Amino acid sequence: MLKLLFADRIENWPAYEPALKSALAEMGIAAEILLPPADPGAIDYIVYSPRGPVQDFTAYTRTKAVLNLWAGVERVVGNPTLTQPLCRMVDEGLERGMVEWVTGHVLRAHLDIDFFLAHQDGVWRQAGHVPPLARDRSVVVLGLGALGGACATTLASLGFAVTGWSRTPKTLAGVTCLSGPEGLRAALGRAQILVTVLPNTPETTDLLNRETLALMPRGAVILNPGRGTLIDDAALLAALDTGRIAHATLDVFRVEPLPPDHPYWAHPKVTVTPHIAAETRPASAARVIAENIRRFEAGETPLHLVDRARGY
Amino acid sequence: MLKLLFADRIENWPAYEPALKSALAEMGIAAEILLPPADPGAIDYIVYSPRGPVQDFTAYTRTKAVLNLWAGVERVVGNPTLTQPLCRMVDEGLERGMVEWVTGHVLRAHLDIDFFLAHQDGVWRQAGHVPPLARDRSVVVLGLGALGGACATTLASLGFAVTGWSRTPKTLAGVTCLSGPEGLRAALGRAQILVTVLPNTPETTDLLNRETLALMPRGAVILNPGRGTLIDDAALLAALDTGRIAHATLDVFRVEPLPPDHPYWAHPKVTVTPHIAAETRPASAARVIAENIRRFEAGETPLHLVDRARGY
Repeated sequence: MLKLLFADRIENWPAYEPALKSALAEMGIAAEILLPPADPGAIDYIVYSPRGPVQDFTAYTRTKAVLNLWAGVERVVGNPTLTQPLCRMVDEGLERGMVEWVTGHVLRAHLDIDFFLAHQDGVWRQAGHVPPLARDRSVVVLGLGALGGACATTLASLGFAVTGWSRTPKTLAGVTCLSGPEGLRAALGRAQILVTVLPNTPETTDLLNRETLALMPRGAVILNPGRGTLIDDAALLAALDTGRIAHATLDVFRVEPLPPDHPYWAHPKVTVTPHIAAETRPASAARVIAENIRRFEAGETPLHLVDRARGY
Repeated sequence: MLKLLFADRIENWPAYEPALKSALAEMGIAAEILLPPADPGAIDYIVYSPRGPVQDFTAYTRTKAVLNLWAGVERVVGNPTLTQPLCRMVDEGLERGMVEWVTGHVLRAHLDIDFFLAHQDGVWRQAGHVPPLARDRSVVVLGLGALGGACATTLASLGFAVTGWSRTPKTLAGVTCLSGPEGLRAALGRAQILVTVLPNTPETTDLLNRETLALMPRGAVILNPGRGTLIDDAALLAALDTGRIAHATLDVFRVEPLPPDHPYWAHPKVTVTPHIAAETRPASAARVIAENIRRFEAGETPLHLVDRARGY
């Protein structure tokens, strides 16, 4: 019976416990998962995140590997007490999760699901409430990296009229691709539903501001699963109040958790989701962890082993 | 300037007016759309449904064609006053609309969107609320005809673990296909989200009843965009109250409009949508109408011309 230590934040345990147990069982690995504090000398594998309680690996003398739950290892790779092999997480679940969140919320806006949820009052409102088809709905995705590109092509496969925008020119099947400053203005001008999947860089900070929001069609809907810094919050609140923007569903914020008194929480035209679109997913991450334990135990080459010299 | 008569129910005018005007304009057709009562002798084309006000076509001496908004023509083809050419509607928008409604509501359940909409209260509920990935969500589609099959393959393309069931064996790429009575029991047993897209036949009446609902996993979600007769309403309400079924989103009912005092309207675990999943869609139907007017005016063969002898 192998002994694993779950050394992530304890708040994540309820999500990871069933995921890890299920992944280990599927892999046929008999293991017990311990929570800190546990005898370091008894631990075979550490399921790790830099936010967890383990900072000193010296006492983990029996430990065969440290299995990071994060893609980034910059907060652990230089730890001088770490002598055990370190593996980083490559979670294709993150991309799938992003695509599912974006597709679900685009369809929620497209089908006007909130309207029907708010009108369960005995009145049959069919006339004027049959939504258009996806091909008559213009969706714009800002950012065509791995995540944004996957969102854009998935939405196109569902029939939406999709325009993608990126800083430099790109080509994606079924997607009208625009780029550069002029392309951004054109993209915003046709965005009935806007999805922002850009990284946080100096160029993208406050990309959606008073001026750019004013380019969007009246009644547009914004979905931001990208970065909190993409949006000038005061400008968005003002655009919601004038009706230029009909609704915003926001998954990321400048400060997280979003403070309880932030106006987004109480705004009737804003839906807050708690950074769930692009999290490392316990189910898929647990499979990577279990697969790596299987490989270490079988003497096979582990997945995503970190090269200490390169630092990743 | 051609003169069109809109002879459907007047409740549908707000949806069709912009759709028809837009489709005609795109086709470059100069036309005026009149509402009844209008001088029959001045009408070039009748946009028709059997539920509309026109029953006697005798006075429409100038009319070049009757353009039916319905796929079925059984309520007009035998009309002895009809001497004008009759075209039926073939609206591929109906299938797309069904796929979009089903995909949107499957993702709504999958992502637990209602939960977040109901908790915009300043509390950051991330732990335990990151949804699983689609591949870990078992979705079952009952009915694999044109509509059900399109729903099943679209859900599979999004990554869902999709099982389809049909009366007779079928094969669909990416979908686990079951059939027959034993297959139905197996399908229901794995349905975390169940989508019913069966036709209304003696065999499908009350297919979801006390016995079959009891086969479903506790906490399952039901979506019915198919037919109201598929569900024993009392059995569903009982299963919602015990928690066996967590939620039902229903688009079709035994009596439509659903009466204001029907328990579905007020039930906290039921969402009613007003038969919007598989309606003829104004935008796509209007394109078919406009294309046919263009063809008649150009002397070309019209689309979907009804053969009176065959009756369709």
